[in-house]
Amino acid sequence: MKNRLLVAKIGGNIIEDPEALTSFLEDFSKVEGPKILVHGGGKSATRLADQLGIKTEMIDGRRITSAENLDIVVMTYAGLLNKTIVAGLQHRNCNALGLTGADANVILAEKRPVQFVDYGYVGDVVKVNGNIITAFLNQGIIPVFCAVTHDSQGQLFNTNADTIASEIASEMSADYEVSLFYCFELKGVLENIEDKDSVIEHIDLEKYTALREAEVITEGMLPKLQNCFDALQKKVSTVHIANADFIKDNTTKHTTLSL
Amino acid sequence: MKNRLLVAKIGGNIIEDPEALTSFLEDFSKVEGPKILVHGGGKSATRLADQLGIKTEMIDGRRITSAENLDIVVMTYAGLLNKTIVAGLQHRNCNALGLTGADANVILAEKRPVQFVDYGYVGDVVKVNGNIITAFLNQGIIPVFCAVTHDSQGQLFNTNADTIASEIASEMSADYEVSLFYCFELKGVLENIEDKDSVIEHIDLEKYTALREAEVITEGMLPKLQNCFDALQKKVSTVHIANADFIKDNTTKHTTLSL
Repeated sequence: MKNRLLVAKIGGNIIEDPEALTSFLEDFSKVEGPKILVHGGGKSATRLADQLGIKTEMIDGRRITSAENLDIVVMTYAGLLNKTIVAGLQHRNCNALGLTGADANVILAEKRPVQFVDYGYVGDVVKVNGNIITAFLNQGIIPVFCAVTHDSQGQLFNTNADTIASEIASEMSADYEVSLFYCFELKGVLENIEDKDSVIEHIDLEKYTALREAEVITEGMLPKLQNCFDALQKKVSTVHIANADFIKDNTTKHTTLSL
Repeated sequence: MKNRLLVAKIGGNIIEDPEALTSFLEDFSKVEGPKILVHGGGKSATRLADQLGIKTEMIDGRRITSAENLDIVVMTYAGLLNKTIVAGLQHRNCNALGLTGADANVILAEKRPVQFVDYGYVGDVVKVNGNIITAFLNQGIIPVFCAVTHDSQGQLFNTNADTIASEIASEMSADYEVSLFYCFELKGVLENIEDKDSVIEHIDLEKYTALREAEVITEGMLPKLQNCFDALQKKVSTVHIANADFIKDNTTKHTTLSL
């Protein structure tokens, strides 16, 4: 039987709120067994860009990562946020190790191909190096990934944190029974965005199609759900979208995904 | 017989100059055997602070690290500079892993005690965790340290990069025959700061005292030399202060330290 592994992803609204972050780190540090954390941080990057007077170009609601924006992303994600989380986990006896995809060549990516839009320094994941992650886990290390990858030619990339979590969970499923948790400030996928309690408790592929067609699922949630189904198709055992509290209390209302 | 280990420290003037950095990474990547890189980056931090309109307070010529300054230090050292170097080494087939002292709890520090001056979030090294560094080296990993440490209570610190290099070299001397190279833009310690060729090729403790008394050694060089002698006293095999080219060509004029 395979060992269990938790891959948890926390979003910007948790990282940005010191109280919510402390509470999450407290809960995450108490989870027993091997575990991996992946974090975003887009809001911090946008704030630093604003402070520096650097414009963030958006096309069709999607962010373009210019060279200047990439520097900001690397400074905030790999620098301030990642190291704040690592230090916070060390304080709670979690032997955290902060990683970008470049560190120990753990996530290889390639520049997103230009079709209609050039997203700039945005990388799509090509390969997760599961062996090195397993080696770290076997040393009792808790890898903490930020949303930065590289192409092994010296170029760093901004990469979607949800996708990184999904790709890591998928890769690790060869050796572990992986649970993937997407933790954020809401309770799960909502039927009605105005009603924070209208959690859709179970979504399979059929329901996903129906929700998409009925336009119940908003734009930002679509790629997250796609990442969930990608992970399930790549043999990740369980995938949940839940409030950050879920990590402490698995009985709280949340969304469970299945094929 | 112990295995050899190179601990190289590069200063801000090399990191800041893309051509010098490329050349150094090229040379460093070709050094065979286990190796560790430590880098500074004060100039980048000062520039970002200026861009953000954050004042850097100096007392008696020494920088005070406020909470705002610490964030900038973590963003530039652990973020942009560290990851640029890591990606540059990966490009050159060096399996680099970027580290602060908080990552894998590798360098524990404590806030510098307040005597006459409160330096703010400046940490003095308490302990280097040599076992985890050895484990990384045995995995073929090249640790790349920036000048950030932690206290294991969740607090990050700004810590002198020369001191980090000296402390790591000293700790690793229990298991390795360590060579410590301080690489910068000059050729070594200069007799006359106006004459870039006036390298003092050999400095022992007696000469050090004489140079200090004659005020040949300028203020910035004093702590660097102290770090060199500390390392030698803690059994580091060889210590050199040299131009970054020295890593490629050990026959170039440079300063060698001895007790």
